[in-house]
Amino acid sequence: MARILGIDPGSRITGYGIVDSRGGIMDFVVCGVIRTSATQSFAYRLNEIFEGLNEVIQTHQPAVAAVEEVFLATNPRSALKLGHARGVAVVAAMQNGLAVHDYSARAIKRAVVGYGQATKEQVQHMVQVLLRLTGKPSVDAADALAVAICHANHLQGVL
Amino acid sequence: MARILGIDPGSRITGYGIVDSRGGIMDFVVCGVIRTSATQSFAYRLNEIFEGLNEVIQTHQPAVAAVEEVFLATNPRSALKLGHARGVAVVAAMQNGLAVHDYSARAIKRAVVGYGQATKEQVQHMVQVLLRLTGKPSVDAADALAVAICHANHLQGVL
Repeated sequence: MARILGIDPGSRITGYGIVDSRGGIMDFVVCGVIRTSATQSFAYRLNEIFEGLNEVIQTHQPAVAAVEEVFLATNPRSALKLGHARGVAVVAAMQNGLAVHDYSARAIKRAVVGYGQATKEQVQHMVQVLLRLTGKPSVDAADALAVAICHANHLQGVL
Repeated sequence: MARILGIDPGSRITGYGIVDSRGGIMDFVVCGVIRTSATQSFAYRLNEIFEGLNEVIQTHQPAVAAVEEVFLATNPRSALKLGHARGVAVVAAMQNGLAVHDYSARAIKRAVVGYGQATKEQVQHMVQVLLRLTGKPSVDAADALAVAICHANHLQGVL
């Protein structure tokens, strides 16, 4: 069995989701978001992401992390901020001894919806179905679970 | 007295420089670079930056950190990588209880050379003069010392 932590980094909201994968079966463990303090400095917020992920990892003990890559598109300023948050997420995982895998948004969507251009709502829906959840996870938590599912598929050789 | 750590983050080479500032007098403490392993993954290299800065901070106990901002210009892909490294540097400082200040490359050059468009060689030369160094620090270490000097000036109300 592999316990996989999926992370969808963001300077305002970082989603996380943990899935257990064993022989092609995936079980939901936990998901949520780290919401950083809007009134604090950027440095402070980056530190909140680090400490939030640290706590999630120490509580649930995943064996491996998968982190969504930053899509270099529209706004370079947003991409740069996202890069900061993503670097912090990667190091939070590394500092806890987790191997870190990267997946593009396209690969993640393809893994859960079968279609690289899927909408956030489609991802949210399919995450709920694939993990047999009774409720819909929030969009950011669903994205993080989707990253974990993508890595689980990768481990199964499905991707 | 304030012991200031200046950081010039980079995914390949991260420069650091520490300066003691007391009543307008600046004393050199240490400078160097953290060179990440070219053959390793990006995640591994980010972790090397984190651990390298951690060691520098724990050895020399600076009270405050100043980090050069990423210049959003030329290559968005490089800026994104730099963003990762910079986020990691900021959190390494925060995790050690240091306040973190940001300065643009322009402000840093103005602080040490008096001219926002100064060349790397001019920065290197003026850092040597201002800190009364017997030798020239490497370009990356000089940049980091320049960030520390910039913050020292700021503390003195010179900026």
